[in-house]
Amino acid sequence: MRVIKSVKEMQEFSDSLRNRGEKIAFVPTMGYFHHGHLSLMDEGRKSGDCLIISIYVNPTQFGPGEDLEKYPRDFETDRELSEERGVDVIFCPSNSEMYPEHYQTFVDVEGVTRNLCGLSRPYHFRGVTTICAKLFNIVKPHVAIFGKKDFQQLVTVQRMAADLNMDIEVIGMPTVRESDGLAMSSRNTYLKKEERESALSLIRSIKLAKELYDNGERKTGKIIEEAQKFIEEHPYTKIDYVKICDAATMNDIEYIEGEAVLALAVEVGITRLIDNYVFGNPLDI
Amino acid sequence: MRVIKSVKEMQEFSDSLRNRGEKIAFVPTMGYFHHGHLSLMDEGRKSGDCLIISIYVNPTQFGPGEDLEKYPRDFETDRELSEERGVDVIFCPSNSEMYPEHYQTFVDVEGVTRNLCGLSRPYHFRGVTTICAKLFNIVKPHVAIFGKKDFQQLVTVQRMAADLNMDIEVIGMPTVRESDGLAMSSRNTYLKKEERESALSLIRSIKLAKELYDNGERKTGKIIEEAQKFIEEHPYTKIDYVKICDAATMNDIEYIEGEAVLALAVEVGITRLIDNYVFGNPLDI
Repeated sequence: MRVIKSVKEMQEFSDSLRNRGEKIAFVPTMGYFHHGHLSLMDEGRKSGDCLIISIYVNPTQFGPGEDLEKYPRDFETDRELSEERGVDVIFCPSNSEMYPEHYQTFVDVEGVTRNLCGLSRPYHFRGVTTICAKLFNIVKPHVAIFGKKDFQQLVTVQRMAADLNMDIEVIGMPTVRESDGLAMSSRNTYLKKEERESALSLIRSIKLAKELYDNGERKTGKIIEEAQKFIEEHPYTKIDYVKICDAATMNDIEYIEGEAVLALAVEVGITRLIDNYVFGNPLDI
Repeated sequence: MRVIKSVKEMQEFSDSLRNRGEKIAFVPTMGYFHHGHLSLMDEGRKSGDCLIISIYVNPTQFGPGEDLEKYPRDFETDRELSEERGVDVIFCPSNSEMYPEHYQTFVDVEGVTRNLCGLSRPYHFRGVTTICAKLFNIVKPHVAIFGKKDFQQLVTVQRMAADLNMDIEVIGMPTVRESDGLAMSSRNTYLKKEERESALSLIRSIKLAKELYDNGERKTGKIIEEAQKFIEEHPYTKIDYVKICDAATMNDIEYIEGEAVLALAVEVGITRLIDNYVFGNPLDI
């Protein structure tokens, strides 16, 4: 396994792979790996001849007052896990390599980023799409793999890739969960012991919403109300949003007809957790 | 020579070139060719194994009330001139191919686009960078060639390519002029006979500025004042801007020290003309 820190070296390496006709699979990450990340790597290992991952805590997707500084990092463990998982290259550039002085270019996806996390984190998706555009130009993958836990992020990156004619297949992999249902996230490490039970209110409210839907409820207002009420019954919780949106446009909907997603963002103590569920799908919890 | 209208076909063609190890040179244009365009093609012919040009009047770089509808078009003549010039592929997509329904992604270069044409045409450069990003992803060139007449555009595209780590060399070619010095532009076709002499006020004010500079003047206020006065003496002229900027940042400067550019935009009748001059360079007029 190779560790590359320079943009130029990464591009030359990827060029050499492409010149040999190899298919490049890419998993962009912010590190501090859990089983969710590992599942993306497993998918990458299957879908490409060469598996490249990036580890980069991208400052432009954090807002002022967010957790950029304290975001968990553990490169040595990440490196070992990557090696075990059959990763060929870790690309882990410095901030000055990615955003040198006079940096001034941003990619903005307008429609699908405006609701949900785009409301509470106004520049977040601009940071995500910008770093993804950069990483795609550096790693030159044929396929890029993201988790569905960040559903709006996945839709946004897919939208960007399609709109800007990036010749890259962007695929989403199912959320990986702890045995009790909590969606895996590097931020779960922030949760205090006494908050852990309240963190389960997200997946449990999803189960509740699924049951209502499976029993025929299609009015989103009704489902949202029940889910919110359920979450609010748990201590330490503060709802950022509980919404049901069209899964392609991310716009709020009143009735569930086509593909619809229930999206949740809840602060549990100081930890902001997100989760989501696309109606009509199984939920193995 | 091949004419390609589909994004997918263009990408597959470029992939096949790259797989054969061929170097792709690319000249993006809005068509209605003059000798300026042809000089870019000549440079492309020299710098690549395969020369691809695009002809596309990009709607997102025109503002409301600008000349999108009446922008001159003549595909048959353009095709003949391209063939003569040794072009291998013309990529000429439709609007619906480039901006399908629900299109919503834009690339914005913030710093260098804010002055000059960015002041009078607020969304112009966002349109330029967005279409260039798209075309680069479609044509997959190693080198892209632009004219220096649109100096701010060249700086902006170079900035975007560097910031987003596009692995593309973006080069600028000297402005091609009529024998009397008028910078060639597809928009010159709008000029009425009686306006033609006034259109020369741009290059002649550049000569005046060059003389002041060559005689030791470094205060930009003084040079700008003389150039403005000179242009205003001509009938039909309305100055949009006459500015002297740092050639890298496009910021106004008070004294000429490093590389500085005199940039002009003047309406002559209904025709908006631009021209520029980087101090210290020869001017063959």
